[in-house]
Amino acid sequence: MLAETEAGETRIVEMVFPNQTNHYGTLFGGHALRLMDMVAFITASRFARQTMVTACSERVDFQAPIRQGQIVELTGRVIATGRTSVTVEVEMYAEELLTGKRDLCTRGRFILVAVDEHQRPVPLRKTLNSKTASLSATEGADQQST
Amino acid sequence: MLAETEAGETRIVEMVFPNQTNHYGTLFGGHALRLMDMVAFITASRFARQTMVTACSERVDFQAPIRQGQIVELTGRVIATGRTSVTVEVEMYAEELLTGKRDLCTRGRFILVAVDEHQRPVPLRKTLNSKTASLSATEGADQQST
Amino acid sequence: MLAETEAGETRIVEMVFPNQTNHYGTLFGGHALRLMDMVAFITASRFARQTMVTACSERVDFQAPIRQGQIVELTGRVIATGRTSVTVEVEMYAEELLTGKRDLCTRGRFILVAVDEHQRPVPLRKTLNSKTASLSATEGADQQST
Amino acid sequence: MLAETEAGETRIVEMVFPNQTNHYGTLFGGHALRLMDMVAFITASRFARQTMVTACSERVDFQAPIRQGQIVELTGRVIATGRTSVTVEVEMYAEELLTGKRDLCTRGRFILVAVDEHQRPVPLRKTLNSKTASLSATEGADQQST
Amino acid sequence: MLAETEAGETRIVEMVFPNQTNHYGTLFGGHALRLMDMVAFITASRFARQTMVTACSERVDFQAPIRQGQIVELTGRVIATGRTSVTVEVEMYAEELLTGKRDLCTRGRFILVAVDEHQRPVPLRKTLNSKTASLSATEGADQQST
Amino acid sequence: MLAETEAGETRIVEMVFPNQTNHYGTLFGGHALRLMDMVAFITASRFARQTMVTACSERVDFQAPIRQGQIVELTGRVIATGRTSVTVEVEMYAEELLTGKRDLCTRGRFILVAVDEHQRPVPLRKTLNSKTASLSATEGADQQST
Repeated sequence: MLAETEAGETRIVEMVFPNQTNHYGTLFGGHALRLMDMVAFITASRFARQTMVTACSERVDFQAPIRQGQIVELTGRVIATGRTSVTVEVEMYAEELLTGKRDLCTRGRFILVAVDEHQRPVPLRKTLNSKTASLSATEGADQQST
Repeated sequence: MLAETEAGETRIVEMVFPNQTNHYGTLFGGHALRLMDMVAFITASRFARQTMVTACSERVDFQAPIRQGQIVELTGRVIATGRTSVTVEVEMYAEELLTGKRDLCTRGRFILVAVDEHQRPVPLRKTLNSKTASLSATEGADQQST
Repeated sequence: MLAETEAGETRIVEMVFPNQTNHYGTLFGGHALRLMDMVAFITASRFARQTMVTACSERVDFQAPIRQGQIVELTGRVIATGRTSVTVEVEMYAEELLTGKRDLCTRGRFILVAVDEHQRPVPLRKTLNSKTASLSATEGADQQST
Repeated sequence: MLAETEAGETRIVEMVFPNQTNHYGTLFGGHALRLMDMVAFITASRFARQTMVTACSERVDFQAPIRQGQIVELTGRVIATGRTSVTVEVEMYAEELLTGKRDLCTRGRFILVAVDEHQRPVPLRKTLNSKTASLSATEGADQQST
Repeated sequence: MLAETEAGETRIVEMVFPNQTNHYGTLFGGHALRLMDMVAFITASRFARQTMVTACSERVDFQAPIRQGQIVELTGRVIATGRTSVTVEVEMYAEELLTGKRDLCTRGRFILVAVDEHQRPVPLRKTLNSKTASLSATEGADQQST
Repeated sequence: MLAETEAGETRIVEMVFPNQTNHYGTLFGGHALRLMDMVAFITASRFARQTMVTACSERVDFQAPIRQGQIVELTGRVIATGRTSVTVEVEMYAEELLTGKRDLCTRGRFILVAVDEHQRPVPLRKTLNSKTASLSATEGADQQST
């Protein structure tokens, strides 16, 4: 079990219920955003083992509707680190319970910052290793401000 | 009452409870995003009087933490329309219940698209008038894709 | 934004979901009462900037049913103050999302009392000004007891 | 088990959690009202075995605060019937889990009306018997209007 | 009211809503288990007036499905006590709101243990009297381990 | 992503909030049981791709308390199949967010049955292969009755 946690991927499944949908049975975007941030928060906290807060959610496009009776599965993965911040990519899939058909519904990036008890940013005690260095570099601009 | 609805501004207040916060009593970003989308959805639906779904949430920066025991107040306002889409700007304030001190916590834009019963985009039956035309124009690029 | 807060009106919109309704798709009265008290609580707290508790909900008549898929909009307004109490009038409207048709569903008065940390009533530090004095006077009898 | 149902008393217990309270750990009045209406609804429905909606909640005074960590117990009892309406008296007690100390917090009356599928009032198929006739009579005035 | 509390029976009614059911409108087992444990917790706490935690839920068979629109009624009753533990039997009935037809859906036993502030088991200050002694004896084996 | 689904393991993480705990900050057993059944339901449904209902939850022992501020992670795995039933083993871990320390809190088995639209058991269209045949055999007795 430890191995999987080290790998930094966090996964959640949830049923879509009627009270999370509009007139045509499609999941509200806001519910998806809340789930995505929750996955990002746990993924970043597990990576850093510090108290993290969401500093920014990047643009999120909803590519396919999610319907009631489906399950949604979300995965979070750390893709970059800055001095005080962790960038998490979250993917969200919809899956038909009775057929297993899966669609990628949306993908988003969340930037979380390590903070102290006064909510001030503090340095991360751990960063992504060299394998992901190039990605880290391209992300640098975004994260200067946090 | 009708006058206010015509003006296209929607407003929600909500108490921040302990189960919406992290270890240091700060609201989870995901909860804020869910509230922001809900306001955007109602604002766009009231403007268009068609079934709307969230197509995109623009980048959202969280500028100030929201603490437990505060109330949050959100306002939504239509700032642009495309052929099938409505762009709503949402502002979120935190307010101390006992002092009245208010802070702008975050501001975000949500693009919602009018859809038919098969979830296909359909034209809006109403667009923003000339007073807001210039804003509409600058938004045009974003909305081509929806 | 401050101006509106000063004016003492608080507003909430909420979607009516299937799990808040009976067999015929009508909102439970208890859900309406909870929303009405929440608006009254925030309205009174914003007016007094003291810790308030609900001492009394006056008789509430439900004049028109609220249906699933509608939105409800509630407004709260301070109409009288006593030595320790604030009376808030709450109106609740149902609005068809796709037509904009609005109906007043119910109107109620809630009396909230300022309390200290031992839950004992304490004097208000602020009262309604002369413009509303006559209304204040007629409310006096009700509020002697609080 | 049937005997108890016939007797027309419905009972609910619920834990009071931190997210239902104000700054001083006291239950919001609106949460109490929601529970009271739910008990009234089930009590009236079990009595009449028809679809009931809340037409009115009488004035409710909150006599003692309910604190977090307590349990609340509510009981509902039919005290009068009209041509189309049932009046339910609801009592709400707070109980310390570790000492058993109980306080009556509030008592309220809810009037529910039997309706058809178009939400129009329809006659009750059952009324309270002679033992409660005098009470029924005094309630009559209130219920003319429903 | 005190008499009933002494008798150690706790009762809850709840409406079954669409978001607690599967595709065919049947209540999820997990929701039933949560309600059953809640009743067991309150029943054991009221009996012992000590802080109790669930140590074990015995095998629970679901004999009849519970449908949306029904109400569920649960009753809890202390049937045995050990040195540190209380065994509560919980019965769960489904009731048609409009006909009153009732079915026993499931019956389960929960063992709760009295604990101190470090979560260590502590002796009960009260045990079941001689009337229930024989039942207590047969339960003894199960409870050695708690 | 398909590979993981084939493997039949489902995983959920969730934060433990104050309103899910008792006086000493320990998660209610009933909340754990609800999560365990939800994982079992999704695991069994993904395995069988038929409509499943929970027929039975085996005895569940709670070995270590779960505290507020921790996250819980649950995994579900199909360990046996009968003619109409699937047995799922669910493990539940508590993890300290800031240290990563993990404890197995409980392990349970849930038996779910495939049903038709009248809630009658129907044969599974898929069973576990020979590698797990011996386990399947020992489970057989339990599942005769479903």
